[in-house]
Amino acid sequence: MSQWFEEQLDVSLGRIFKVAYSDKLESVRSPFQKIEVFQTLSFGKMLVHDDVIMVTEKDEAHYHEMIAHVALTIHPNPEKVLVIGGGDGGTMREVLRHRQVKTAHLCEIDEMVVRVCQKHFPNLASSFTDRRVGLFFEDGATFILAHPHEYDVIIVDSSDPIGPAEVLFRREFYQGMADALKPDGIAVTQSESLHYHGSIIGKLASFCREIFPIYRYYYALVPTYPSGLIGFSFCSRQYDPLVDFDERRAERLGHLRYYTPAIHRAAFTLPAFCRDFLGE
Amino acid sequence: MSQWFEEQLDVSLGRIFKVAYSDKLESVRSPFQKIEVFQTLSFGKMLVHDDVIMVTEKDEAHYHEMIAHVALTIHPNPEKVLVIGGGDGGTMREVLRHRQVKTAHLCEIDEMVVRVCQKHFPNLASSFTDRRVGLFFEDGATFILAHPHEYDVIIVDSSDPIGPAEVLFRREFYQGMADALKPDGIAVTQSESLHYHGSIIGKLASFCREIFPIYRYYYALVPTYPSGLIGFSFCSRQYDPLVDFDERRAERLGHLRYYTPAIHRAAFTLPAFCRDFLGE
Repeated sequence: MSQWFEEQLDVSLGRIFKVAYSDKLESVRSPFQKIEVFQTLSFGKMLVHDDVIMVTEKDEAHYHEMIAHVALTIHPNPEKVLVIGGGDGGTMREVLRHRQVKTAHLCEIDEMVVRVCQKHFPNLASSFTDRRVGLFFEDGATFILAHPHEYDVIIVDSSDPIGPAEVLFRREFYQGMADALKPDGIAVTQSESLHYHGSIIGKLASFCREIFPIYRYYYALVPTYPSGLIGFSFCSRQYDPLVDFDERRAERLGHLRYYTPAIHRAAFTLPAFCRDFLGE
Repeated sequence: MSQWFEEQLDVSLGRIFKVAYSDKLESVRSPFQKIEVFQTLSFGKMLVHDDVIMVTEKDEAHYHEMIAHVALTIHPNPEKVLVIGGGDGGTMREVLRHRQVKTAHLCEIDEMVVRVCQKHFPNLASSFTDRRVGLFFEDGATFILAHPHEYDVIIVDSSDPIGPAEVLFRREFYQGMADALKPDGIAVTQSESLHYHGSIIGKLASFCREIFPIYRYYYALVPTYPSGLIGFSFCSRQYDPLVDFDERRAERLGHLRYYTPAIHRAAFTLPAFCRDFLGE
């Protein structure tokens, strides 16, 4: 017998995504949120924070490859990387594929996410045992203020701008990231759905362009996220994700589940209606 | 007060898409299917056949532009076009944007779909009043057998391979389309989701490649379809949708909601895992 997990995507407009599960493997409450793990019938194990789907085994690679490899193939020598959020370990796993990476910090506000994922998602969280990794259980917005000009790449693998991640969608946080990056550093941030969050993305793009000379929006197909995709902001002072793209470095990553050199380019090509909120 | 419309995407695996509606504007039963129209809270009016979402006002243009404009910008002179299915009129509206089109036939098995859409979706179905249009309420698989070597472009705007459209996913039908096309004709067909229907797509691609020297799969982002996208098969004996693409013809279409010359190219770029079923 299976039961239904329901995610309410939008209270006022009323969209819901439902998925069947056979077993609830975990249900704990951290100081920050409710954390649950379900054994679903069609997506493998599924991690849920406060009733919102974070990760499923079936499609997690789409998201984690695309949030990591675009910046890490563009930066010529990404020795020091910071992941903010990303407590499941999937983004870190992809970061560590790049041999130039000597140090990779994870700053996750909720230690219990890491502990739950080490137990239930070893394919993701085992990345934390790599000798290059340092774990910090702190608030990301505060953490970056203590690390000026330190990172080559910062990746913000956050949840939505409701709850603990709300601060990560503010202008002050993006200014803080700019200061925590080396002069030629790159930031990539989880930036919602181009179908449902045009006004959030438009606001984000607007202040990012004031802070970073190069701002570009791209997306990945992730069927268990609202509207079946998730977008990312690429912010940089120096490197352009299309102009400075070296396909040979991307090819060296080998056979991945989602990312390819061609996808790297195509992901930045947006439907015409995105001009309405991106103002391009 | 609003109510919920539920679409069961997959019985065995258990995925459901729910959307709130304020009003059910139509509910009729044709000889082929149940046809309903809902006033939803977030997607405008929504057309539903046998409990499956066909069209919503909010995102119908994504689908209709992408099923029509790729073939019609690639064919150098698409004078005679056939749309199979497409009773809502959205695909026909996009076909008629091309001035080279002199005759556009619609072969829809279910006349009641056309009548319901003329009443509730004038922005789509008013295309049928264009003097270039001929309407045929017949079975598409039989219709093409009576029209050998007649069309420059055939577009199959069908529902899923369950119910009345099942025959449109068979090899015999694709062979029939090849015979109904002129020697340099192009066929484009609705071809499901790359996330959920890999085995259907793989089978389709396999027999299409035996019939047509050029086969390519592409997709459009449509949030109200399963997994948030829909794919298309591009089948041709002569013209390649990327090699033979003339951006100037695409630009002449003006400002659309989804399709752009860059999207035309990017839509054929698929995530790495699609190789598993497309065998490329």
